[in-house]
Amino acid sequence: MIDEGLKALLSHGYEGAGIGPILKSAGVPKGSFYHFFESKEEFASAVLSTYCGNNQKVRTRFLHEDKTKPPLQRLRDYFDYYEEVYSSGDPAACACLLGNLAQSIAAHSEVLQRELHRSFTAWQEDFKSVLREARDAGDLPEHLDPDETAAFLIDAYEGALVRMKAEGSIKPLQRFSTMTLDGLLARKS
Amino acid sequence: MIDEGLKALLSHGYEGAGIGPILKSAGVPKGSFYHFFESKEEFASAVLSTYCGNNQKVRTRFLHEDKTKPPLQRLRDYFDYYEEVYSSGDPAACACLLGNLAQSIAAHSEVLQRELHRSFTAWQEDFKSVLREARDAGDLPEHLDPDETAAFLIDAYEGALVRMKAEGSIKPLQRFSTMTLDGLLARKS
Repeated sequence: MIDEGLKALLSHGYEGAGIGPILKSAGVPKGSFYHFFESKEEFASAVLSTYCGNNQKVRTRFLHEDKTKPPLQRLRDYFDYYEEVYSSGDPAACACLLGNLAQSIAAHSEVLQRELHRSFTAWQEDFKSVLREARDAGDLPEHLDPDETAAFLIDAYEGALVRMKAEGSIKPLQRFSTMTLDGLLARKS
Repeated sequence: MIDEGLKALLSHGYEGAGIGPILKSAGVPKGSFYHFFESKEEFASAVLSTYCGNNQKVRTRFLHEDKTKPPLQRLRDYFDYYEEVYSSGDPAACACLLGNLAQSIAAHSEVLQRELHRSFTAWQEDFKSVLREARDAGDLPEHLDPDETAAFLIDAYEGALVRMKAEGSIKPLQRFSTMTLDGLLARKS
């Protein structure tokens, strides 16, 4: 049900994702929804929480596990991994659930606004710690603040995903890597 | 009707924007919708086209009219203008219609996908011409390609708007300006 919910939310947005079709795809009998969730809002919140748990695992794997790799290389590996994920499907059908829910429902649901805030914060903390490592290793341009840079990377990446969906192409993700990893974050020699 | 349609689309996304409430707010009698538009898709496309026409006027005003100003200063004035616009309302209720429709409907509507592509392209062309002027004046860091940079600025700005909506704060817009105008685009002395 969570899997089908994720697919429906990513494809149609919050308002467009119908509980009926989600239950049908998941093979869950109609009418049993409210045994599991109090409302559509609670359901979307559970989907978001699972989605973010999975993303957290990917971040741990790429950003924190192998400390022998230079921090900025780990960040690059992380973005490369997602570029591959998005390349393997239809880019027009993909999206980030955070950006998607932010656009479609955040303003109307305190539950989801809180959950989104929590998710963005966790993501940002992970980037921040890698960027601090990079700074301590002397690999980050001096004028960049790790906290602000972490937040900006997330913002810019969310936008690249929006554009990917609009254009049905992963070019914006490649552009993101070129402009940030090879540009903004590259230490001037 | 276009005005009310814009408000509804920005606030609820494509699927969440009901034609009924839009007609009611606009004082247009129920049932007359199909005298004006063939479908909701065509209506959203007309709203998008009007929205982009207005944005085009803002771009012309800030980016092209006063050629005595340095190109990058014009770009900054443009972003400052929008920061003021978004500050004057509730950031959680604001959004860019392009990013919004890209998330909620682009994958399901060729009409809107085409219109979105057209709108992003027009926007990008305007940034490109200003960045080329900056390059010709020696004001752009040499490693930056005006075309790629124009596209990246739009991507990153779209993401800042998503985050603004998620967080209910204009901080992401300020971060965007700091990281791009004061960072990426600043010529190293």
